[in-house]
Amino acid sequence: MTITITAFQSSPDRGRGLARDMRVRWALEEVGLPYNVRLVSFKALKEPAHLALQPFGQIPTYEEGDLAMFESGAIVLHIAQRHPGLLPNEPDARARAITWMFAAVGTMEPPIVDREIAKYSEGDKPWYDERLSMIDKRIRTRLAQLSAHLSDADWLDGAFSAVDIMMVHVLRRLEGAGLLEEYPNLAAYVERGKARPAYKRAFDAQLAIAIAAAAH
Amino acid sequence: MTITITAFQSSPDRGRGLARDMRVRWALEEVGLPYNVRLVSFKALKEPAHLALQPFGQIPTYEEGDLAMFESGAIVLHIAQRHPGLLPNEPDARARAITWMFAAVGTMEPPIVDREIAKYSEGDKPWYDERLSMIDKRIRTRLAQLSAHLSDADWLDGAFSAVDIMMVHVLRRLEGAGLLEEYPNLAAYVERGKARPAYKRAFDAQLAIAIAAAAH
Repeated sequence: MTITITAFQSSPDRGRGLARDMRVRWALEEVGLPYNVRLVSFKALKEPAHLALQPFGQIPTYEEGDLAMFESGAIVLHIAQRHPGLLPNEPDARARAITWMFAAVGTMEPPIVDREIAKYSEGDKPWYDERLSMIDKRIRTRLAQLSAHLSDADWLDGAFSAVDIMMVHVLRRLEGAGLLEEYPNLAAYVERGKARPAYKRAFDAQLAIAIAAAAH
Repeated sequence: MTITITAFQSSPDRGRGLARDMRVRWALEEVGLPYNVRLVSFKALKEPAHLALQPFGQIPTYEEGDLAMFESGAIVLHIAQRHPGLLPNEPDARARAITWMFAAVGTMEPPIVDREIAKYSEGDKPWYDERLSMIDKRIRTRLAQLSAHLSDADWLDGAFSAVDIMMVHVLRRLEGAGLLEEYPNLAAYVERGKARPAYKRAFDAQLAIAIAAAAH
């Protein structure tokens, strides 16, 4: 069954792999599933055809036969549930892993995204520096807790899994902020994720779109 | 197998059912599972015994035999996957429902929680009014999109499901903000959720703790 995902026609990160389709691409590469990509312009994101697939006007979406999904966490979980290698088989261990997938998007990601939102919506406000330090304090609290939990393990919850696809990508959004580097085990964890061949294939595919768009 | 969840010993909302254990209680009541509650003080949330269960120092947690979980979305999904009545059986419909569970915590909840964080951490800042209007704009964008998707349906994704437990509770956190009322179908949706007998039992159980704490 053909899989089609959506991605930004012109990604705000210029192909640095920060857009959320990266998570889905990485999961598909890990399990060896081919997929098509439909690029969507910012204008088209807000139009009825895309909103019927993604009511919040975002990417990625995922289509496979009659199934249409959105939310990167749900899509990665779906891929991991239907193909071996990305989740433990034992039911309790699987429930634990799903806990961590929700933690990535529900607990770790919000303050990190808030930092991005503040940058573009409050960057010119007189209060920006004070706001940024408040946000960074919240992010550091979460990073310290995650760092304590990871300890000296290679991956967050046993063997490499869908958990790490989600969490590594969430943490990557801190690149350039100088925060991740304060927690060397987390910085090394992100690098371990980025070193996986499936990650590299997904990254290169996203970058190729940006290069083609720039040449256009 | 005995189920034990954790909840605030002294909830910041004084028993109005806004703490996230409410979602787990509601799901357990819907499927008719008895459960024990262990109350945790704010001090104990940050201590090693609790952090071993919940690395981010939050409630709720969920213990069932050897399984220990956190993240309300993951717990509600776990309950719904193991007991009939809270998720569609057909695999594609189930994947769609899980999409919406992630949307509740990953897309709808962050700006709503941001409003709460701003209130307690920026309420006394000179910029608070301007910040609040920026946050409310983000919340309205999401509410308008959700309202358009819900349209005149009773529930978000077909029959009542775990999706609605998550989304109704996320939207309830807007009570008192005057925003939900701008979208009458969403306000009615939340009221439909609150009218369910299982919701009421969960709410009363949470309220009873606050009443007992106040009398103490």
